[in-house]
Amino acid sequence: MKTLAAQVITPEDLLKHWQGHRNLTRRLIELFPEKDFFEFSIGGMRPFSQLVDELLAIAGPGLKGIVSREVQPYTESPEKLIFKAQYLQKWDEATAQINELWEKLSIEDFNETFNLFGQYEFPVIQNILYFIDNEVHHRGQAYVYLRALGIEPPFFWER
Amino acid sequence: MKTLAAQVITPEDLLKHWQGHRNLTRRLIELFPEKDFFEFSIGGMRPFSQLVDELLAIAGPGLKGIVSREVQPYTESPEKLIFKAQYLQKWDEATAQINELWEKLSIEDFNETFNLFGQYEFPVIQNILYFIDNEVHHRGQAYVYLRALGIEPPFFWER
Repeated sequence: MKTLAAQVITPEDLLKHWQGHRNLTRRLIELFPEKDFFEFSIGGMRPFSQLVDELLAIAGPGLKGIVSREVQPYTESPEKLIFKAQYLQKWDEATAQINELWEKLSIEDFNETFNLFGQYEFPVIQNILYFIDNEVHHRGQAYVYLRALGIEPPFFWER
Repeated sequence: MKTLAAQVITPEDLLKHWQGHRNLTRRLIELFPEKDFFEFSIGGMRPFSQLVDELLAIAGPGLKGIVSREVQPYTESPEKLIFKAQYLQKWDEATAQINELWEKLSIEDFNETFNLFGQYEFPVIQNILYFIDNEVHHRGQAYVYLRALGIEPPFFWER
């Protein structure tokens, strides 16, 4: 019990936290009009679909690399998705994949160093916090896109 | 040593993570043109100065509430700041205040429930993760504002 109490956050709670964020991002994908998801942008930034390409290339593949200790370079899927429904399907596949991979992480793994995508040599916990932060960051952009399109986004604290 | 190894993240690393984010947000404040910091907005959203009002009302006061276990309502400072330099000063004061308050948190505190601002009754770790996420979220908006203003923001991973 002492060991558990000494944790700042348990792996279970961190997974719940991450998946809560991913659930909110999924709702934003749903909210975008089909065309705007692929085309709308501000200030030369990527449209939301391309930001989601990045998020999909990080979450599942990144965690897979961590669990298997196989260093693979960062690559976005060569499969070109052209409908929001395809993105939502990939998103749900990643959700299941993350849950499955998470089971294979031991508590010791979080403090071990891993060279994510052959580029980011940090403790696993830092890599995972980066996955979450990067998603929150890009989703923050998507909130502005939605507002600029006159669409009310969900509350940030709804997960 | 076993106890330490069992932590997903140590309080020291979580503070470093948070202050790293706060440092990046500070750089964004610096990058905004004075006028745009107070006036520029997209889609009816708040200008960055007002988002920073919120961040300042959360970080220091929220952590102070957690440490002292005193439930105070959420209030933005009644003092009206009209220059970016004043915001930067408040930001730096909050940075020092956070470091000081953090020293008073024991590892057990993170799992205890606190009714933040009398509204959010969650474990302290969830409250602190919310502080960070909310800042990353709003800073993501500020990135879009900067891009829309034709200003190149810093890399997200520079802390």
